[in-house]
Amino acid sequence: MLSKNKIKFIRSLERKKERNESGLFLAEGNKLVADLLPYFSCELLVAKPSWMATQGDLKAKELIVADENDIEKASLLKNPQDVIAIFVQSEQILDKSLLQNELNLALDGIQDPGNLGTIIRIADWFGIHHVICSPDTADIYNPKTVQATMGSLARMQIFYESLPELLTTLPDLPVYGTFLNGENIYTNTLTTNGLIVMGNEGNGIRPEVEKHINRRLYIPSFPLETDTAESLNVAVATAITCAEFRRQQVQSLGYTPI
Amino acid sequence: MLSKNKIKFIRSLERKKERNESGLFLAEGNKLVADLLPYFSCELLVAKPSWMATQGDLKAKELIVADENDIEKASLLKNPQDVIAIFVQSEQILDKSLLQNELNLALDGIQDPGNLGTIIRIADWFGIHHVICSPDTADIYNPKTVQATMGSLARMQIFYESLPELLTTLPDLPVYGTFLNGENIYTNTLTTNGLIVMGNEGNGIRPEVEKHINRRLYIPSFPLETDTAESLNVAVATAITCAEFRRQQVQSLGYTPI
Repeated sequence: MLSKNKIKFIRSLERKKERNESGLFLAEGNKLVADLLPYFSCELLVAKPSWMATQGDLKAKELIVADENDIEKASLLKNPQDVIAIFVQSEQILDKSLLQNELNLALDGIQDPGNLGTIIRIADWFGIHHVICSPDTADIYNPKTVQATMGSLARMQIFYESLPELLTTLPDLPVYGTFLNGENIYTNTLTTNGLIVMGNEGNGIRPEVEKHINRRLYIPSFPLETDTAESLNVAVATAITCAEFRRQQVQSLGYTPI
Repeated sequence: MLSKNKIKFIRSLERKKERNESGLFLAEGNKLVADLLPYFSCELLVAKPSWMATQGDLKAKELIVADENDIEKASLLKNPQDVIAIFVQSEQILDKSLLQNELNLALDGIQDPGNLGTIIRIADWFGIHHVICSPDTADIYNPKTVQATMGSLARMQIFYESLPELLTTLPDLPVYGTFLNGENIYTNTLTTNGLIVMGNEGNGIRPEVEKHINRRLYIPSFPLETDTAESLNVAVATAITCAEFRRQQVQSLGYTPI
């Protein structure tokens, strides 16, 4: 049985202020919670016995056996599942040498929590483990974002930093962005390290970030110069861009006979 | 001034039953409505004078000048804009010869209206003009779908058909699908015609559709065979797939020196 106070506390984590003050975040769903449990310290686990029975040892500071009614009251989802968990946010410290040696992603003012979560999932798929977000990007611990990452959150390191300040300290880094007047991504020889910057849904990349971009790319529509959609959704553009970086990398390594 | 009845009628188009019975659909937003007006017959246009002033001749059966308050009452959006329009759904008749000669998309049970709209926008970007949806795919005229197409709806032909029945009549067509055990999309020589089938968000492509798929593809994660995200969002997978078909097509045409 879940107390009113507990329900109120769980639901309060929908708000960034409460998440920041407590250093906690919320995750829901049978698979998502199971995926996150090995990676994040769990403060509170509220679950039906049926879900608990599918798990091994459960490591949580507090464990509450709940019924349908409890879960429904505490859940932020339209279709609540069998488990709700509160985890401790992990603190990430940015190691700049990783930026020099690997391919990474920077997000300049992504507003939509769902887009952010989808982008994290894409980055994970393509083996990109560091995402640097401008301070005004949506909160990675927003429950909608956590949900959209589909567990990828566990494998990612996500930082919030001023992008212009960071880029000023990395003058030699290949910094990529996609623009309608960029160069065809398919005819560009892409590097295996560097930073891919994706911009805000409506306004794109800010001028103070754009000036640090030294490789301007374009995802060609088909056929070129006909009347098509004016742009792609930012998560979709991220996916096509990351896919092409990795395709070229695999090709140049000779893994596959492209 | 918008009557209570008109507000009720506008809002009723959120429901499929009312859309089907009336043959109408709803679109909102300054740019979206302007984009759709040249392509769809407009039954009702409710707009602020400021928006009307930005348009030329407005062709609508009924035009109502509205204020902020009217728009807010009638709108289904969180952040209503300056115009709401009701359009007549267009009837599309499938010409099977188009399936033989062009590259097209089939959707097998896509549930999320936002995913459907995003996929329509992706198809438009990549010059794919025909999308065949299984009868249980989300409704293309769902307001959330219309919104997510960002105007691409105007350039697309969308059909609802039984996919197994359709595919039975097209035995020689290259029919593609993405599977975790498919062949690497980058090492496959993709055709410039045929059908790309994308499956349901949770369950993928149905067995009765899968048996008609003669080209099984896989989008490789990076690096291969490491612990990454388990799958990609269906719109994201659609985008990467369509991008690769068009990249290969452009390359084989010799447009660009890849």
